[in-house]
Amino acid sequence: MFHFTITATGASTAARTGVFATPHGSLITPVFAPVGTQATVKTLTPRDLAEVGATLVLANTYHLYLRPGTALVADFGGLHNFMGWPGPLLTDSGGFQVFSLAQWRKLDADGVTFRSHIDGSLHRFTPENAVAAQEALGADIIMCLDECPDPLDHGYNEEALRRTHAWAERCRAAQRRADQALFGIVQGGIFDDLRVASARTLAALDFPGYAIGGLSVGETKPQMYATLDVTVPELPAGKPRYLMGVGAPEDIVEGVARGIDIFDCVLPTRVARNGGLFTRQGRMNLRNAQYAADPLPVEPGCDCYTCQHFPRAYLRHLFKAEETLALHLATVHNVRFMLRLMADIRGHIAAGTFAAFREQFLVEYKLPNQEVRHAQRAAYVARRREAMTG
Amino acid sequence: MFHFTITATGASTAARTGVFATPHGSLITPVFAPVGTQATVKTLTPRDLAEVGATLVLANTYHLYLRPGTALVADFGGLHNFMGWPGPLLTDSGGFQVFSLAQWRKLDADGVTFRSHIDGSLHRFTPENAVAAQEALGADIIMCLDECPDPLDHGYNEEALRRTHAWAERCRAAQRRADQALFGIVQGGIFDDLRVASARTLAALDFPGYAIGGLSVGETKPQMYATLDVTVPELPAGKPRYLMGVGAPEDIVEGVARGIDIFDCVLPTRVARNGGLFTRQGRMNLRNAQYAADPLPVEPGCDCYTCQHFPRAYLRHLFKAEETLALHLATVHNVRFMLRLMADIRGHIAAGTFAAFREQFLVEYKLPNQEVRHAQRAAYVARRREAMTG
Repeated sequence: MFHFTITATGASTAARTGVFATPHGSLITPVFAPVGTQATVKTLTPRDLAEVGATLVLANTYHLYLRPGTALVADFGGLHNFMGWPGPLLTDSGGFQVFSLAQWRKLDADGVTFRSHIDGSLHRFTPENAVAAQEALGADIIMCLDECPDPLDHGYNEEALRRTHAWAERCRAAQRRADQALFGIVQGGIFDDLRVASARTLAALDFPGYAIGGLSVGETKPQMYATLDVTVPELPAGKPRYLMGVGAPEDIVEGVARGIDIFDCVLPTRVARNGGLFTRQGRMNLRNAQYAADPLPVEPGCDCYTCQHFPRAYLRHLFKAEETLALHLATVHNVRFMLRLMADIRGHIAAGTFAAFREQFLVEYKLPNQEVRHAQRAAYVARRREAMTG
Repeated sequence: MFHFTITATGASTAARTGVFATPHGSLITPVFAPVGTQATVKTLTPRDLAEVGATLVLANTYHLYLRPGTALVADFGGLHNFMGWPGPLLTDSGGFQVFSLAQWRKLDADGVTFRSHIDGSLHRFTPENAVAAQEALGADIIMCLDECPDPLDHGYNEEALRRTHAWAERCRAAQRRADQALFGIVQGGIFDDLRVASARTLAALDFPGYAIGGLSVGETKPQMYATLDVTVPELPAGKPRYLMGVGAPEDIVEGVARGIDIFDCVLPTRVARNGGLFTRQGRMNLRNAQYAADPLPVEPGCDCYTCQHFPRAYLRHLFKAEETLALHLATVHNVRFMLRLMADIRGHIAAGTFAAFREQFLVEYKLPNQEVRHAQRAAYVARRREAMTG
């Protein structure tokens, strides 16, 4: 179980395609996992997911631990059965949400105590019960409990890494089920020395796969890419590499170029619910008046249900009229966009043309306004800093 | 076009089955139309509608006239094309919404002036432009502009009927398209003399079908049934009869027994979004704690996607977690419930067993708490009275 076979490599880049075997099916990598936080990818049924080509789905341990509870999910035979998704699943450890979502938290060497963002009730995650929670949920790929500090604070990251590494060992020791691949999570912010040390420490523990955490949470894109440049080469070449919580289409292309195999991100689903639709030319905001009478599909040539059946004008009408069908149809397109992008990437790696594809993609894909992005990022960093110290 | 053929009659009741031919397909009656107010049955795609067995869909002229505008819909080849629904469509005239939804309204012999509930802008419906709006939308079945008064006020109903009948004549004269069946609407509140007069007046105008309006808007159920008892026999036996805005499962069974062929109602979709799921034993509220660990489908034996794939516990989790997928899955079940009920009704009429079916259904189907219903109804009547006089 959990064999990872590399099937092609990317010539002038570190890109590769592979097959990662899991108990619920083989993943063809690079793969993008839509996010099903609360045991549902928002607005999509399992058959919608299959139709848009999803193979791997992520669910959040923190949320499911709080509601409906991991014991209840276990009583239903685990998450696959409970949510009706027969394919591979991945759960995170809950660590990131404790640091970003919980009402209150207090860290010690042994774990983290926190108050639920739902009802303020008191809970505690330790390496041992984070693994137990994920064993109850039963995903195919599970994560070690880690600490996700402000990526720009060297001192904090150095201290946090000691906990994260100790917790990784304890998670490995706590694992009881053999049918779940437990990944170690590399941390260390944007600091080369810490990332290299973290990658080497975890590699020595010989996990079946490695996640890179703590990115896309406040640093700039060049900082994120530079961090990948120093981190990925330190990870075992023969094991799958998972870049957590990333990302935007351009980040996926850049991540693949640096040797990443697995991605997940709320971006396509969240942006869709705000009326933002992905195309190879960039994002369009369907709420804009310019689409009021537009007879074209969102992205001409796209094979998704939305593009095959509805003009932009109808989708805009649904958004303006606040119809929930708008959220569904936009989500269908955006997830299909990401999965078509992954298929294109894999095809180009296999054909030896990925470097040219990467270049062309980044020329064609118009990034959202950089000033807006910068302001959003600054606000996000400020909120996170407050949460970390609060 | 618009031939109506009666295929079976209900022995000891006035029930009948039939086939009503429309330009977008033949309707097998009695038929229930899910409501797609804003050119979408909330949370359902056209293929979801086809899968649950919908044949006729209703859309609201008032809403579509205001947003996105009937001219825009006409530019897209009409409502069938715009919303991607290839089957028969029915639009109301907008009259009811002007009286129940608009911010403000002023009636005169020639029409009604009103302010949009969306932005307060000023608009006017006349018999002529209500027909023109529905010709732009292009539904297969369209309605005359009518006035829908408080059903318990004899004087007001008598006065309103004069306008409604004059408007019905003007609507007929205004009709330009031959591929739409324009129905007259019988009004008259709960008053036998007015209902009989209205039915006779409209029957003399020889419409291709007749709607019964102004019911389920404040009167009691016995009053509604009694009104049908005196009204239906006055309508031509060979034309389809449409009971507007009705209704609850028990009202459908009672309506069919009195000779109604077409129904529409927001109830199954609206109740679904509040967590109320229909079963033959009555409504269940999936938000209740009793379903937290319930492994059964909503209604064992139901063939809908929801019942075929998910336990009640999962649906309850989605409702508690405020996931929009809950709204979709509940809507799928409730619409399928109504359409299975209609199929059962048709089967029993054809088999000559409808009277026994009706009796058994009303025994098995536990009505929602009558005190709650009475309080809701009283509040509704008070709001409507205020709106009428405001």
